[in-house]
Amino acid sequence: MEKKYDVLSLGEVLMRLSPPTNEKLTRGDFLEKQVGGAELNVLSGIALLGLKTGIISKVPGNDIGIFSRNKMRGVGISDEYLAYDNESDARLGLYYYENGAYPRKPRVVYDRKHSSMLKVKLEDFPEEMFTSTKWFHTTGITLALTPEVRDLTKELIKKFKAAGAKISFDVNFRSNLWTGPQAKQYIEEILPYVDMFFCSESTAQLTFLKEGTLEQIMKSFTEEYPISYVASTTRIVHSPKVHTFGSVFYDALKDTYYKEDDYANIEVVDRIGSGDAYISGALYGLIKYDGDCQKALEFGNATGAVKNTIPGDMQALELNEIEAIIASHQDTNDTSEMTR
Amino acid sequence: MEKKYDVLSLGEVLMRLSPPTNEKLTRGDFLEKQVGGAELNVLSGIALLGLKTGIISKVPGNDIGIFSRNKMRGVGISDEYLAYDNESDARLGLYYYENGAYPRKPRVVYDRKHSSMLKVKLEDFPEEMFTSTKWFHTTGITLALTPEVRDLTKELIKKFKAAGAKISFDVNFRSNLWTGPQAKQYIEEILPYVDMFFCSESTAQLTFLKEGTLEQIMKSFTEEYPISYVASTTRIVHSPKVHTFGSVFYDALKDTYYKEDDYANIEVVDRIGSGDAYISGALYGLIKYDGDCQKALEFGNATGAVKNTIPGDMQALELNEIEAIIASHQDTNDTSEMTR
Amino acid sequence: MEKKYDVLSLGEVLMRLSPPTNEKLTRGDFLEKQVGGAELNVLSGIALLGLKTGIISKVPGNDIGIFSRNKMRGVGISDEYLAYDNESDARLGLYYYENGAYPRKPRVVYDRKHSSMLKVKLEDFPEEMFTSTKWFHTTGITLALTPEVRDLTKELIKKFKAAGAKISFDVNFRSNLWTGPQAKQYIEEILPYVDMFFCSESTAQLTFLKEGTLEQIMKSFTEEYPISYVASTTRIVHSPKVHTFGSVFYDALKDTYYKEDDYANIEVVDRIGSGDAYISGALYGLIKYDGDCQKALEFGNATGAVKNTIPGDMQALELNEIEAIIASHQDTNDTSEMTR
Amino acid sequence: MEKKYDVLSLGEVLMRLSPPTNEKLTRGDFLEKQVGGAELNVLSGIALLGLKTGIISKVPGNDIGIFSRNKMRGVGISDEYLAYDNESDARLGLYYYENGAYPRKPRVVYDRKHSSMLKVKLEDFPEEMFTSTKWFHTTGITLALTPEVRDLTKELIKKFKAAGAKISFDVNFRSNLWTGPQAKQYIEEILPYVDMFFCSESTAQLTFLKEGTLEQIMKSFTEEYPISYVASTTRIVHSPKVHTFGSVFYDALKDTYYKEDDYANIEVVDRIGSGDAYISGALYGLIKYDGDCQKALEFGNATGAVKNTIPGDMQALELNEIEAIIASHQDTNDTSEMTR
Amino acid sequence: MEKKYDVLSLGEVLMRLSPPTNEKLTRGDFLEKQVGGAELNVLSGIALLGLKTGIISKVPGNDIGIFSRNKMRGVGISDEYLAYDNESDARLGLYYYENGAYPRKPRVVYDRKHSSMLKVKLEDFPEEMFTSTKWFHTTGITLALTPEVRDLTKELIKKFKAAGAKISFDVNFRSNLWTGPQAKQYIEEILPYVDMFFCSESTAQLTFLKEGTLEQIMKSFTEEYPISYVASTTRIVHSPKVHTFGSVFYDALKDTYYKEDDYANIEVVDRIGSGDAYISGALYGLIKYDGDCQKALEFGNATGAVKNTIPGDMQALELNEIEAIIASHQDTNDTSEMTR
Amino acid sequence: MEKKYDVLSLGEVLMRLSPPTNEKLTRGDFLEKQVGGAELNVLSGIALLGLKTGIISKVPGNDIGIFSRNKMRGVGISDEYLAYDNESDARLGLYYYENGAYPRKPRVVYDRKHSSMLKVKLEDFPEEMFTSTKWFHTTGITLALTPEVRDLTKELIKKFKAAGAKISFDVNFRSNLWTGPQAKQYIEEILPYVDMFFCSESTAQLTFLKEGTLEQIMKSFTEEYPISYVASTTRIVHSPKVHTFGSVFYDALKDTYYKEDDYANIEVVDRIGSGDAYISGALYGLIKYDGDCQKALEFGNATGAVKNTIPGDMQALELNEIEAIIASHQDTNDTSEMTR
Repeated sequence: MEKKYDVLSLGEVLMRLSPPTNEKLTRGDFLEKQVGGAELNVLSGIALLGLKTGIISKVPGNDIGIFSRNKMRGVGISDEYLAYDNESDARLGLYYYENGAYPRKPRVVYDRKHSSMLKVKLEDFPEEMFTSTKWFHTTGITLALTPEVRDLTKELIKKFKAAGAKISFDVNFRSNLWTGPQAKQYIEEILPYVDMFFCSESTAQLTFLKEGTLEQIMKSFTEEYPISYVASTTRIVHSPKVHTFGSVFYDALKDTYYKEDDYANIEVVDRIGSGDAYISGALYGLIKYDGDCQKALEFGNATGAVKNTIPGDMQALELNEIEAIIASHQDTNDTSEMTR
Repeated sequence: MEKKYDVLSLGEVLMRLSPPTNEKLTRGDFLEKQVGGAELNVLSGIALLGLKTGIISKVPGNDIGIFSRNKMRGVGISDEYLAYDNESDARLGLYYYENGAYPRKPRVVYDRKHSSMLKVKLEDFPEEMFTSTKWFHTTGITLALTPEVRDLTKELIKKFKAAGAKISFDVNFRSNLWTGPQAKQYIEEILPYVDMFFCSESTAQLTFLKEGTLEQIMKSFTEEYPISYVASTTRIVHSPKVHTFGSVFYDALKDTYYKEDDYANIEVVDRIGSGDAYISGALYGLIKYDGDCQKALEFGNATGAVKNTIPGDMQALELNEIEAIIASHQDTNDTSEMTR
Repeated sequence: MEKKYDVLSLGEVLMRLSPPTNEKLTRGDFLEKQVGGAELNVLSGIALLGLKTGIISKVPGNDIGIFSRNKMRGVGISDEYLAYDNESDARLGLYYYENGAYPRKPRVVYDRKHSSMLKVKLEDFPEEMFTSTKWFHTTGITLALTPEVRDLTKELIKKFKAAGAKISFDVNFRSNLWTGPQAKQYIEEILPYVDMFFCSESTAQLTFLKEGTLEQIMKSFTEEYPISYVASTTRIVHSPKVHTFGSVFYDALKDTYYKEDDYANIEVVDRIGSGDAYISGALYGLIKYDGDCQKALEFGNATGAVKNTIPGDMQALELNEIEAIIASHQDTNDTSEMTR
Repeated sequence: MEKKYDVLSLGEVLMRLSPPTNEKLTRGDFLEKQVGGAELNVLSGIALLGLKTGIISKVPGNDIGIFSRNKMRGVGISDEYLAYDNESDARLGLYYYENGAYPRKPRVVYDRKHSSMLKVKLEDFPEEMFTSTKWFHTTGITLALTPEVRDLTKELIKKFKAAGAKISFDVNFRSNLWTGPQAKQYIEEILPYVDMFFCSESTAQLTFLKEGTLEQIMKSFTEEYPISYVASTTRIVHSPKVHTFGSVFYDALKDTYYKEDDYANIEVVDRIGSGDAYISGALYGLIKYDGDCQKALEFGNATGAVKNTIPGDMQALELNEIEAIIASHQDTNDTSEMTR
Repeated sequence: MEKKYDVLSLGEVLMRLSPPTNEKLTRGDFLEKQVGGAELNVLSGIALLGLKTGIISKVPGNDIGIFSRNKMRGVGISDEYLAYDNESDARLGLYYYENGAYPRKPRVVYDRKHSSMLKVKLEDFPEEMFTSTKWFHTTGITLALTPEVRDLTKELIKKFKAAGAKISFDVNFRSNLWTGPQAKQYIEEILPYVDMFFCSESTAQLTFLKEGTLEQIMKSFTEEYPISYVASTTRIVHSPKVHTFGSVFYDALKDTYYKEDDYANIEVVDRIGSGDAYISGALYGLIKYDGDCQKALEFGNATGAVKNTIPGDMQALELNEIEAIIASHQDTNDTSEMTR
Repeated sequence: MEKKYDVLSLGEVLMRLSPPTNEKLTRGDFLEKQVGGAELNVLSGIALLGLKTGIISKVPGNDIGIFSRNKMRGVGISDEYLAYDNESDARLGLYYYENGAYPRKPRVVYDRKHSSMLKVKLEDFPEEMFTSTKWFHTTGITLALTPEVRDLTKELIKKFKAAGAKISFDVNFRSNLWTGPQAKQYIEEILPYVDMFFCSESTAQLTFLKEGTLEQIMKSFTEEYPISYVASTTRIVHSPKVHTFGSVFYDALKDTYYKEDDYANIEVVDRIGSGDAYISGALYGLIKYDGDCQKALEFGNATGAVKNTIPGDMQALELNEIEAIIASHQDTNDTSEMTR
């Protein structure tokens, strides 16, 4: 049976404010206004590639909330399940981002507390939402927001699972939102429902106290929980403007690991959201190619790598562009300089 | 004895974010980043004219707080009494502002709750602060923030008064911060300490339930409280881009009203802060010219009128420019087109 | 039975390129990139007010076509019926627009020939499209593009009409696309299918050779064809930056004319698309309020008037903002200066 | 015999630096970089209309001089007689310009002393220059620069006159460059060579101590000197953003005055250079139409009026645009809103 | 006998529209507006170095054509032989360009069909044009436009050759304009007239089916045709932001190859037009230094390499700057960091 | 006894005008407006780190001088000893700066002659200035301006020294201001008063004719003069966008050299002022940590290195940011990517 959406995701929508290029937050007269959020970034990346996505969230009913709605529509995300907070203290959480240049690291200043998202409730959404999607995705950031949001998240995971959707979860550990032990405890409560698990090696070690090689760690999650796929990205930060990016993808059913050459010496323009872009490519590969982990790996690596070259939180390349990047990455003889 | 400051003021520092020119908040990719706040605007206007001013406030100890500090320094306000909030939930209150064009009115969206200012405490400031100034100014906005800030405000007013400073107070009624009866009650508690009172005719009627002509209303405040001066500005909004601005100034001791021709058909660029700019001119006139109400009226009208032509919350003309505007306003034969 | 869309419209999507503010096309280094088109502008205006709309058009399958798709999504228009031209000569029609300032008039330079829209075919769209909407709208611009597009337009009008949709048509005469006699001939061929007809007084006189008062002219169309409603906008151009805007709305069934005071001395920022914005408001009023012509008039006048203050081709105010403008227009005592 | 140039002019090339729109010079981070100069402005206006012009000047041989050369080439002025100063103290004079908005007047700050222009010498130019033009123009600004430049100017006037060129001179009195009596003395020395004299009524009164009506004053110059034409512009400054502009043109041979309705309520964007633009139109009319003063008046008024709507010092409308403005000005029935 | 121009060139003038820095064409609100074209780029580069150049082309007679004319004048190219298309379908061809950052390649989207250039005819130019220049240059892009333009190009080559001009030709193969066999056929028809031939190694192999070393290939052209000089540039694309650039230059008369060290690891800002810039330097060297191929090589490599650091299609460094780059390239001890 | 200032410095304030990013001075319409100056840059860097600084200088009393005052206030420098030049020829010296990209070097064009600074006189400053600071700093640029400024500088050094301040001096040799022998002669006259001496190795060799290793050269100055500390920075210019930066610091009393690993492969955004930023860090370390040369070295290297990543002449990182850079530089295990 055809579902209305390929992927729905619960997550907070944030406004991001950034000074131009190399300017600092403490100076200057202008800020670039963008929207972002771990789950939103994943959805927009998937929508760009051609699948149907929708955000589950709550934003203020004021001009700033409308701005975020317009931006989400513009990247192809449905706002059918976007709830509005019309109270006088409604606010869109925001964060400030400043680029780096060695020896100056990028900086983030958060101003995301007390946001309208924290008031999100089950009643904000219609019951038919749960049967409308093939896949549901969320992250540890959402789980970490407040106890109330955490409970709602668990409730939604169970309801989507019950309605037949696949569940994916990205740990995305942020030490300013919760502690490692808290993350471990609450994530383990939802792992029994998770089909696809995204977790970096360092988080697996520090938060889940895993030991062994990356491959062993990845497999261990699937041994403890009924998880089908685990993916871990790797990043080498040569400098704020040069990174190397790749990943390992594990298929528990086939007990097979998928890898390819890293994207080396990426010319970084804006690193924010590249992990989320990876997930968008990986989920696209899995969904579009019916569980083909090689495709998931290739799309994930390409979308994750190329996001680093795009200003803002969200990936911006269409399907044909991503396919060209994959082809060029695989063709060691490709010396074409330009797409024209 | 020489005091270190001419004017100190307690008030919240806000970041203002505005889309360029005629753009709307719900669209576009850029915002102009400025700082403002009723008390800050007054201080900057006075500093521009050459007196020494300082802000009493609390801002986050992060990049955004530092940005506000740099902006205040840049307009000549001392940050000696600027306290920092280094907790993880520190935030600078902010608001969004969109220009209007008939039939579209200007719009403000506030996001100022939970700010670092609300944590301001008496202990944030040294005891010598109270003897360091000739004049202390604050507004109803500060009084309305929280009960704690209100108590602190009253405490400061008493301490500055006791240390020999003159006290000025601007009602600046905002219905989104408190109700009329609340405003009336709390302001009446501080009126016994006030030397100079700024109140518009409509606020006097609606909030203080005054009746009679504007002149009668102004005088009535000085009869009920030991107030020396009362000033009321008048504004006719022909359209979002055309206003007429003027004021009446009352000297209770001399029982005299001061008036002059309005500044008619001002070519409005940005109306925000023009009331605060008026106060800056009026206080400058009073302080610089030892209570000369005619000077206070002339400077207040000129700074208030011209602020409407300046982008951002703060007046930006130096003393020689304001004096030229006053001279041109008084000289009906002035047909000079340009200052060169 | 619930239809998927409230309004669908067939029309060309154009890119508009404009120098900033008062700059001329023959100078400068930057252009603002926007999308527009008579039918697109109508749809976006309706979508902003909360109804469901979709574009029927054909754009290039390249980055510029994708840009236009993203912009349309961002203003809430469905691209379900947007076809793509993937041939090597695919192009998005474009036009250049320069603002005026008396005595300099605004300027338009067209570069819209040979566009992908001219290849649009019936087979580009699924058969279920015709039953998916309550209302179908198009304009004389589409009818004038080429004989092939004209035939397709007529075909679509008949098919939508047959499927139960109401049909609205805006003459929007452009002498650079066709001649008056051509317009008369081809429009009269489709008038038998039209429920709502938009035509200015001067076009009625010059193109349809009508005589008499505006009211007589409007009524005459309904006497010759089974048209239910006729609307005519009026505009007085005081200068490129000051216009007065209003309309007359005629209900043939009730034989009643609807009028209200003009919006006088509008502070014009960008006049392009204000006629289309009028239609968006009028159709919204008719559809939302079940044929209430007073509502159609009020919404049309407000959306048309306020569009003049918005940069770009498209209206940008949400429903609550438009309702506030209507209320303020009707309340002669409203002196509020700002929405906060 | 065909001359290479229609008009040559001796004058200083200045860089103008302006903050954007309504910003003040004392704030902000950006300046717009333009070139200007009374004589340059005249030449560019004439070149736009289709005649051949060339600048006689001296600029630094560094990047800033090259910038000015590129800008002059871009507006169609020949740099064949542009000399370069390659000494280490070479500099392009500059000035800062800030727009006004009532009650704030526009402001100019000069930084034009010690410029490379002051080193200009007869040897900088080839002897054939004097026979290469039909017309030579200069202004009181050049005459006022230094005694050396003044002597050179007189020398050039005599040589051009001797070679058969017509001479035009614009008083353009600037009190920051010289005094009224100085201007009177030195200008009277060159008036015997002048064919076309531009002088405002107030300058005629204050500097040349003329009395009587404007018409009497204009005629008096032609009675004292062998001047063929005199033109005087009139300007009413309603506010920094609204001016009315017109002129009177006198033909001494025919003893006839030419006038037409003023351009009223011009929507001023940038007033600088509108007097120079007037001269460009007037000279174009005279030269192109063989001394037709009616054409000179019409072109002068149109170019002068419309310059007020163009950012920067120089007129920017092509011949067809100016002719359309004249036609619209003369056709009281013209209600067309836009050129498309 | 002195010729009026050093180099004339026949070629299409295109408008280029580019999003800022790292932005994508499918997003954003602004485009940078520039002009370019293979032949135009060559001419502007030569003009910058001090020789006299003129474009032979046809552009629309509207604002966009005027814009291109102004830009060409601004870079020092004569528009004496620029024809105008005043028909209603006149258009300036354009293309969109987006920068890359590894792994994202730069992108070009063309919209150049149906342009006014395609209407260019022999009658658009005066007969004296053919005797007015020392050198005539054109490229395979012009040859590929249409059969009519191809015929005109051949006609012009023959006429210029007959009038004594040297002929240079750059293959500049574009697969979206014609096929390899077509290019081979038509270029071979004009090679008998060519004095200087520019062809890359890969084009020689793929299009002209040449075999052997680069040196052998270059020589072979001079053996088959009366070509005096052949030049081939080499480029290694390390990433979109890092290239290495150099060339080989062959003098057939002396049977000598000229080479020097490549410019390695160029910090690429905008790669477009660097091949054309190479030609500008090479032709400058040949013409200015009377066939000195070492000079041609040095100037070509320097202008080609440095163009990669300049935004837009055209080289922008003056002669003294290029000479300094050559000197620094040759002086391995040069450690100076800055020109001041 | 507490001094009012930690560091005062005598030096010229310049306006810097720069085209955006990679644009050239000879093109484009916009310039970024900043202030700079060797001494000012040092002061602002120290102020950012938390010490009290003040400028001793003279600027025009016009809008441009006020702009510079506002900028200095904004970076935390006191303008108590800023004198104003109100004469009609008052001017702020300025310079133009253009970024480089290999093989294009950065460019500076000076326009700093005849500035108001050259009129600075002892009487411009109150006598109490000399006792108000712990430290006085100046550079060879100031010494080179004019004989009058040189004499004043020497006078000030003597007076500050006599009042108990430490004296630091940076050679900062500029060949366009004076010759090497001149620099040697005049600097040697003031070296007897200097406590801290900044001199690069190449300047020591070329100007002071020193021989031997860098360490020997540094020590030799302390043997000839009563200098306590000598510091020399080292810079390797890999390309205009990649530099390596470090220094050697010598403590004469302890006869000890301090060094640490260079900051290698800095991602250079704007190299101007990085030497001055080094001095700001070094002086901060010395003053804050009571002569701790290791701290001076670490702060100097960090502030100098990071300045290269900041647009404009002045360092922009607060104390906590600099301390984080030092910590990261010293911690070879630090792989954190971002500050959040």
